[in-house]
Amino acid sequence: MTDPKSGAMLRCQRCHANYSVQQPLWACPCGGILDLDIPARFPWQMMRSRPPGLWRYRDVLPLAHSTVPVSLGEPETPLLDVPNAGSTLYLKLDYLFSTGSFKARGAAVLLSKVRELGVSSVLEDSSGNAGAAIAAYAAAADVEAIIYAPDSASPGKLAQIMQYGAQLVRVPGPRSETTAAALERATQGTYYASHIWNPFFLAGTMTVAFELWDQLGHRVPDWVIAPVGHGTMLLGLALGFEHLRRSGLIGQLPRLAGVQAAACAPLYASFIAGVQSGQYTLPNIDAQPTRADGIAISQPVRWRQILEAIKETGGTMLAVQESEIGASQCRWARRGLLMEPTSATALAAYNLLVESGSIAPMHTVVVVITGSGIKDA
Amino acid sequence: MTDPKSGAMLRCQRCHANYSVQQPLWACPCGGILDLDIPARFPWQMMRSRPPGLWRYRDVLPLAHSTVPVSLGEPETPLLDVPNAGSTLYLKLDYLFSTGSFKARGAAVLLSKVRELGVSSVLEDSSGNAGAAIAAYAAAADVEAIIYAPDSASPGKLAQIMQYGAQLVRVPGPRSETTAAALERATQGTYYASHIWNPFFLAGTMTVAFELWDQLGHRVPDWVIAPVGHGTMLLGLALGFEHLRRSGLIGQLPRLAGVQAAACAPLYASFIAGVQSGQYTLPNIDAQPTRADGIAISQPVRWRQILEAIKETGGTMLAVQESEIGASQCRWARRGLLMEPTSATALAAYNLLVESGSIAPMHTVVVVITGSGIKDA
Repeated sequence: MTDPKSGAMLRCQRCHANYSVQQPLWACPCGGILDLDIPARFPWQMMRSRPPGLWRYRDVLPLAHSTVPVSLGEPETPLLDVPNAGSTLYLKLDYLFSTGSFKARGAAVLLSKVRELGVSSVLEDSSGNAGAAIAAYAAAADVEAIIYAPDSASPGKLAQIMQYGAQLVRVPGPRSETTAAALERATQGTYYASHIWNPFFLAGTMTVAFELWDQLGHRVPDWVIAPVGHGTMLLGLALGFEHLRRSGLIGQLPRLAGVQAAACAPLYASFIAGVQSGQYTLPNIDAQPTRADGIAISQPVRWRQILEAIKETGGTMLAVQESEIGASQCRWARRGLLMEPTSATALAAYNLLVESGSIAPMHTVVVVITGSGIKDA
Repeated sequence: MTDPKSGAMLRCQRCHANYSVQQPLWACPCGGILDLDIPARFPWQMMRSRPPGLWRYRDVLPLAHSTVPVSLGEPETPLLDVPNAGSTLYLKLDYLFSTGSFKARGAAVLLSKVRELGVSSVLEDSSGNAGAAIAAYAAAADVEAIIYAPDSASPGKLAQIMQYGAQLVRVPGPRSETTAAALERATQGTYYASHIWNPFFLAGTMTVAFELWDQLGHRVPDWVIAPVGHGTMLLGLALGFEHLRRSGLIGQLPRLAGVQAAACAPLYASFIAGVQSGQYTLPNIDAQPTRADGIAISQPVRWRQILEAIKETGGTMLAVQESEIGASQCRWARRGLLMEPTSATALAAYNLLVESGSIAPMHTVVVVITGSGIKDA
């Protein structure tokens, strides 16, 4: 069942069935979410001889040795040391990819797998960074991309998706209608290159943890803070640090802090309730509009996995008010960094954690900046 | 007259006077253009121990040893190997900076110098990438930025400049009025952080040549192709490769090809006429609108320096039709790379050089992609 090359396999969260990574599955036939079971190895002496960036870590990725990576030139994203009173603070500028967001990590690995599998057409539903990343890497892989997006999505983001040559399917009504339409088509057989469902996407975002470990001199920080909607960054961090721990390279996981906009904070609500009750349930929330549209997700598919990952690290969830998101974005632009409102939530949450004393002056903290602000300046 | 640390000095192109790099000069008092005279040394054994990126080369830059670089996290920009029939072809993705263009190189070094000099307020005139870069790095340096821009500039680009907290001065009338207004204020004493006049900006763009040399395994390509308006990229390439030659690291310069839009091609016209007559003059051209607005410059200040640099390398100038610029941009977006029309000119010119036989299959060619296309998708 395992791939003879990478030793990885697919495992269902619900029924625990295992599948070969050579099967073009994006979900378990039982309807469950699939994870990747990747052997605990991290052949650093071999990997360190390659140039920095996500492909340095390809021996850990669930790709066959013969697979040629689908690349649009992925740099090691900068880890910027910023003077700060509250702690040692680094910003991981994880938007410095051609498509303008960290979603390039996931798309690069997923489309490499797609090409390895011989799949010729992929489906995604997104009106934002994930849609652009899948469209761009599908173009690079010479694979057809079909992107479902709500009719109401911003014209600029839809234009970016179309410029890559993707086929855009606009769906009227609320965001949930778009997802429903995409899921229906996916169950009819089109390979679902979903940043949410497809575990190869998370195998790509996992590489951000490896880069952090390397850039910090083979140590991990005390805290890593990231915005959370569907959790593709946060789960990538969790999977990557856990892989380093299982491989014997680090002793302790950094605390992960997930950040949502208060206007749409189901994971925050669930986490806080769960701290008291000892178990998590996903509440039905009355979501309000937020400028942090990249994380405005009422029903995150991998919600339980996200909350358990945070709990495992001794971390926490936070919710940030709209006014603080705007103020944070503005404050950092005036220090020269223009980021998406979604990313500004994580910097606002850093301040909350310093104020509450959770972050202490001796701590080393990384805040992940997930999306560029120049797209909608 | 030389800086005791870096050994560099300023020299006037017109009257050949020398000045210390500790004087806050952006032009010679005689009105001439200043260049930097940088000692021919390249202490690679020391520099290679630092992380990749432009600051690896700081020993070559005209900065005091004690100067703390003004940084927004500058990665080594990717050198993407793209399969191609015409030659070995690499794209240098030199837009992967936070501000979305290679102008970050110049702004980072110039603002580092500005902070070293104790200058508290800088002036620039630009409605595009250079204005955004100066505004962002000034914000990072905690230096006031005053950006003059034509009233007609695109609202998106002006918004980016303002979000960095720069003071924007909008000037009615044609582009030349904006330059005239800025020059007037600069002669009254405000330090002119001009990407055109200020030689510290070019010291920054020079680092792209060092990165190429390193990424190609300490070799230089046969050709480097770049778009040219005021020539900040092309002159950076020329200065950097010449520095490597003078320092004994390379024997031969790569051929430099400068590319303009046919609608506004004064350097192309001058170069072609000069090949026949043996001397260069800058013609008065009847400039037409072009989608490559980043290089739509009728009167490039450093025009003679640009043409002589190209001639020195055995290179050439090219002009590309509007239809080819659009087709090139579209073609590369459909391979996953969204770039500014300005950058697409260089890829269109690559095709022309292959068709004419100037580029042969055994050649190694680098095309510099200077600006991201996600800003105006």
